Amino acid sequence: MALALQLGRRGQGQVWPNPAVGCVIVNGGRVVGRGRTMSGGRPHAEVAALAEAGQNAAGATVYVTLEPCAHHGQTPPCAGALVAAKVAKVVVATGDPDPRVNGGGIAMLRAAGIDVVTGVMQADADRDHAGFFSRVTQRLPYLTLKVATTLDGRIATKTGESQWITGPDARSSVHAMRAKHDAVMVGAGTVRADNPQLTVRGMGPRRQPVRVVVSSDLDLPMQSQMFFTTDDAPLWLCHGTGDATAFTAQGAESLPCPMVNGRVDVAAALTALADKGLTRVFCEGGGGLAASLLTAGLVDRLEVFQAGKVIGADGIAAVAGMDVAHLADAPNFRLVATRRIGDDVLSSWDRV
Amino acid sequence: MALALQLGRRGQGQVWPNPAVGCVIVNGGRVVGRGRTMSGGRPHAEVAALAEAGQNAAGATVYVTLEPCAHHGQTPPCAGALVAAKVAKVVVATGDPDPRVNGGGIAMLRAAGIDVVTGVMQADADRDHAGFFSRVTQRLPYLTLKVATTLDGRIATKTGESQWITGPDARSSVHAMRAKHDAVMVGAGTVRADNPQLTVRGMGPRRQPVRVVVSSDLDLPMQSQMFFTTDDAPLWLCHGTGDATAFTAQGAESLPCPMVNGRVDVAAALTALADKGLTRVFCEGGGGLAASLLTAGLVDRLEVFQAGKVIGADGIAAVAGMDVAHLADAPNFRLVATRRIGDDVLSSWDRV
Repeated sequence: MALALQLGRRGQGQVWPNPAVGCVIVNGGRVVGRGRTMSGGRPHAEVAALAEAGQNAAGATVYVTLEPCAHHGQTPPCAGALVAAKVAKVVVATGDPDPRVNGGGIAMLRAAGIDVVTGVMQADADRDHAGFFSRVTQRLPYLTLKVATTLDGRIATKTGESQWITGPDARSSVHAMRAKHDAVMVGAGTVRADNPQLTVRGMGPRRQPVRVVVSSDLDLPMQSQMFFTTDDAPLWLCHGTGDATAFTAQGAESLPCPMVNGRVDVAAALTALADKGLTRVFCEGGGGLAASLLTAGLVDRLEVFQAGKVIGADGIAAVAGMDVAHLADAPNFRLVATRRIGDDVLSSWDRV
Repeated sequence: MALALQLGRRGQGQVWPNPAVGCVIVNGGRVVGRGRTMSGGRPHAEVAALAEAGQNAAGATVYVTLEPCAHHGQTPPCAGALVAAKVAKVVVATGDPDPRVNGGGIAMLRAAGIDVVTGVMQADADRDHAGFFSRVTQRLPYLTLKVATTLDGRIATKTGESQWITGPDARSSVHAMRAKHDAVMVGAGTVRADNPQLTVRGMGPRRQPVRVVVSSDLDLPMQSQMFFTTDDAPLWLCHGTGDATAFTAQGAESLPCPMVNGRVDVAAALTALADKGLTRVFCEGGGGLAASLLTAGLVDRLEVFQAGKVIGADGIAAVAGMDVAHLADAPNFRLVATRRIGDDVLSSWDRV
């Protein structure tokens, strides 16, 4: 199962709207088939593993990180394929809450006389599939917020200089993090200030994450790099008021969202993204968007890069005002790990 | 020598104005004497080790973390004591820049026919004695700045609530850090806001660090805890204008300092502290004092505790405005180590 989980994780960021599943088939103590959900979401992991196993699937034990699907979607049901291949036993890490599956896959296997074991390494699988689960059950993606700050929590000097606070190793690992998410999200202020591309670079050809810009009033410069790279990676605009025609003409997609207090309602924006199929979103700021997401309790994980510089309180803050009067009201995170990345520190925190 | 360095370090915070030296005497492959500079600075490490070695010092090899002193101060010279004990060889980690020593100790040993080796584990010794060296050569103590912040660099909510951002393990390790310094320093704003004792607690009876408060105008509440604990630990006020009589009547000591731009000149204040004998000072904020020290380039080490909370930009910043326009002008620090302390992260940074 550990191998299946590892295989499945390789698909993260590549397979939305589907879950990144891994599958390993063992017969007579030998691995005869391995598969993962492939880029774009098809074929499914079980089908890929069965194809590799061929005749050896008969009588084999199948390890799969998510309950096999039971419905005819874009592909025939995987549970049916396992039955047809005459496997003897299926070990499932965790169930699929998709209402079209939700126990149906396991029932289909058992009805065919296949021995089914569930809950093996379930905590790991639940974490890996968190984005798919929350898309299906809460209409929200799993949201990672990255901040890269000085030792005193600044992301730029008072004149707006921000390149570069962290070093090249930290910036490479940001590209690796982007690659594990379905989308990279920023606020409009970050587009105006930094003119980023937000693509994954230096990691070979791959499905690029969707770029998502959150803008209340579509105050975005038409000459932004993003608008000239819509052939490389999708660009979606979650916006409040304003006419998106000029941007959609450049290849961007318009996602009108409700507003609260003059800003895009970030919960509604994330629901719109989940409904479009996104399971894992990586937010890179700026401070206003970060504050809105944190205040709304929508941040599942925080990745905090810290560089050995100090700018002082007149620099630009990583997180804008949140109106927190008491410490008990401050959003709380649990430390997962801390480590050195080049000359910087990366600490990873999960929502409590 | 590693053992001698370890012994010496135990004296840090306890032996000012003297250096925290360690000494190990080996004869016939056996450790026959161990010593360190004792609380208050006397006896010196070599004398303590010779006392333990007794007759076994004759013909022995002595490992000492700092050049033995050559002058009659409060004690007779250690170099003379080593000669009198008829040791065969002295291994010295690093030289003593004190103008009363400065090679004289080594010369005295060699003149007596003792074999002297220098520079063994010198980098470690130089780091351990950094505060003593800078007191002697630059009239400045070694300065550690501690900040304990949220993930976005805040030390309190907008209403001033700061207790507690970090957890009990982080706070215990702050006490251990205080104990390794000769003095604990804060700005007057911290006294007004937090009313701290700034003593070392939970570590057994020991020489308490001096409490130093930096205040431009002596706007300090007479009912502060500090003024009722001057029997437990010294309290020194580095102040600009104002009459300190009411405070000295409570047992505090007044250290009038020059002002720059309406604030105490922190470089002059640190020189006053070095002249009083302090070698290692631990600054615990607040943001204004931290900014002044950083801007003046006086921070040798930064200890950054980070807790898994987010407060936002309307909270109180760890470091006040520093007028840094360009990243190239931001004070720069090199990562020494990062590790988990309870639920928090501690990263340690040395001045570049």
